[in-house]
Amino acid sequence: MVEINRSSFGLSSGQLFQLFRDGQPHTKAELAELTGLARSTISLRLDPLIELGVISPAAENSSTGGRPSTQLVLNERAFVVAGVDFGASHAVASLADFSGKILASIETKRQISDGPEVCLRWMIAELKHLLAGQGIAEENLLAIGIGLPGPVEHSTGKPASPPIMMGWDAFDVPARVNQDFNAKVLVDNDVNVMALGERYASYPDVDHLIFLKAATGIGSGIISGGQLQRGAQGTAGDIGHVRVSSGGGVSCHCGNFGCLEAVASAPAIIKKLVADGLPIRNSSDLIDATKRAKVEAIQAVRQAGRDIGEVLSTCVSLINPAVIVIGGSLASAGEHLIAGVREVVYARSMPLASENLLIVQSKVGKEGGIIGANVMAIDYVLDAETIDSMVNALITK
Amino acid sequence: MVEINRSSFGLSSGQLFQLFRDGQPHTKAELAELTGLARSTISLRLDPLIELGVISPAAENSSTGGRPSTQLVLNERAFVVAGVDFGASHAVASLADFSGKILASIETKRQISDGPEVCLRWMIAELKHLLAGQGIAEENLLAIGIGLPGPVEHSTGKPASPPIMMGWDAFDVPARVNQDFNAKVLVDNDVNVMALGERYASYPDVDHLIFLKAATGIGSGIISGGQLQRGAQGTAGDIGHVRVSSGGGVSCHCGNFGCLEAVASAPAIIKKLVADGLPIRNSSDLIDATKRAKVEAIQAVRQAGRDIGEVLSTCVSLINPAVIVIGGSLASAGEHLIAGVREVVYARSMPLASENLLIVQSKVGKEGGIIGANVMAIDYVLDAETIDSMVNALITK
Repeated sequence: MVEINRSSFGLSSGQLFQLFRDGQPHTKAELAELTGLARSTISLRLDPLIELGVISPAAENSSTGGRPSTQLVLNERAFVVAGVDFGASHAVASLADFSGKILASIETKRQISDGPEVCLRWMIAELKHLLAGQGIAEENLLAIGIGLPGPVEHSTGKPASPPIMMGWDAFDVPARVNQDFNAKVLVDNDVNVMALGERYASYPDVDHLIFLKAATGIGSGIISGGQLQRGAQGTAGDIGHVRVSSGGGVSCHCGNFGCLEAVASAPAIIKKLVADGLPIRNSSDLIDATKRAKVEAIQAVRQAGRDIGEVLSTCVSLINPAVIVIGGSLASAGEHLIAGVREVVYARSMPLASENLLIVQSKVGKEGGIIGANVMAIDYVLDAETIDSMVNALITK
Repeated sequence: MVEINRSSFGLSSGQLFQLFRDGQPHTKAELAELTGLARSTISLRLDPLIELGVISPAAENSSTGGRPSTQLVLNERAFVVAGVDFGASHAVASLADFSGKILASIETKRQISDGPEVCLRWMIAELKHLLAGQGIAEENLLAIGIGLPGPVEHSTGKPASPPIMMGWDAFDVPARVNQDFNAKVLVDNDVNVMALGERYASYPDVDHLIFLKAATGIGSGIISGGQLQRGAQGTAGDIGHVRVSSGGGVSCHCGNFGCLEAVASAPAIIKKLVADGLPIRNSSDLIDATKRAKVEAIQAVRQAGRDIGEVLSTCVSLINPAVIVIGGSLASAGEHLIAGVREVVYARSMPLASENLLIVQSKVGKEGGIIGANVMAIDYVLDAETIDSMVNALITK
């Protein structure tokens, strides 16, 4: 039995594997030259990766001719990951390969307040169904990324006092899912996951990005220095309860007063318009009204944009992002919301921080949730440590 | 001539050198085992490091006895770095070894508004003086970290529209210093540098920390996910110009109204107290007045703390730090400033983000500036890439 030293420096199978993440083919000879490792060491490290199937010989390329050494390449279809996005009243489950390509997905209306047992049982059944449909064995599902509509302690995968998720507080999501799948389970709040998805799909080269979701609630995901920032307790980006100047004494469901969410979320805007006599029942009515150029609706959405902009202008001073992306159902209200955001952010921010700042509507929209959940799972699976533990498991089998 | 492949994977001299940063002795045999590298490769990589002097044989330890292989260890005194802290009206220059130990320092009253030529000429002369005093050759000074009291584009080392630094805008600080020293020059704003120093000296295990300086100006340095966050243009943490609710129409030197700095900086508090008839001329008078329990002074400082707390409560929502450190001259006003900060932050933040949050006075105080400037220089020098380029220079000489 060969023991892979996990503390080895830059030379484990998993670390060697990182070279394949560029998607380019490599030969053993080339890797030996590149790393300075002996050919025998290269084989020792690569052979388990080939046995695992995460790298494999590239398709024959007869045109190059005469090259005897085998080209090896990342096998994007070796295993799959799952990305699941739970909203307050909807859920999407999907499978993706290592390139992030969605292989299959299913979407449904579903209340998060039904609790974890019901919601996760649905998810497990659907993932089994999707795997069967693709002809993929369950043990080939290596990781499941899950976005939930509330604060989550990412390190344990447990929701932390989520306001709208009855029965989920401190529920051990990975433990429950692991009763049915022997896969790594990664959980984060939906807005962090959307930030990952938006960056992956639309701004892969941007290292400083704030994604703000404005819908039933208001929250943000922060990518700074190229990393998603979760903070000490995982609540980084939770800006719905920052007090805003127009908030006055408006009471918020969090128990405080004048919070951003209490004045600028979709329910807050609808409540105000209803009080003004407009027949608006839900977010779609509100979006419709702005599209039909109903002036009261446009004014209310624009004011919500200003309130959001007030908080974002502090974020700009603090984080100095290159891009702010606005998503969520309210962002669908045309340019009215973003116009309000821009009005305040550009008025309040220092010139150096705002001169190159982009404030834009989400490009990926709802898709961002499952893209980000899959990206979270893929980043875990392809990490050197994960690959090394797979290699160790193979060798000690 | 041996060519070191800079793209080599985990195996360059500089990368091998990282193993020595724990300060522990290592033998070649142990490194070969740890890394899987051939003994010959280990020697090939280590010999230039020994020739450079950055690692060297450990002092004889005869008590272990009978061990033939040489113990190698990081040579903390091989080279030195310099840490320089410029304030609005003071400057400190220092030398440190690789462990961050300050070898010598000099402090003086000095106006940053004298401009870069005068200030940097002083700095260069003092560093030469300190080096001579320590008997250290100038070529052994490898990097100089400089903190400046204004925004700096860290990647180029050029101040970016600094409000109080006449003549410094876009001045190429590294180019000027390199006329006299062949050393890497790293420049950042003083508050970022103080954040690095406070963390290094007092909270080495904390990955999420906000350092706020309250003095003539108000600014912050943000360490999130273990990294100092500079943002897209290097202005991250620049929170002096966030609007606060007590700011009303108070005009700020930035051209805007109601900024935090316009109501809660030392000059703003002094102006207010003078208008109320108190004989307060400067920050020391203000601190004295709070220590003599002059109620108007205490009230004014506490209100400044509340104003700062209003902005910090948004920072808590956004960053979710484990520790907030308050430094700068106003922090010396006993607990009054921090009491105001805590009052608002704990009232306004979500329970999950504030239940384990520490809000404390700076422990390192003024020292933080030079500690942080030296840490910035040491981190650069000991980085794998820097060591590799030193090795390349040695080999191609």
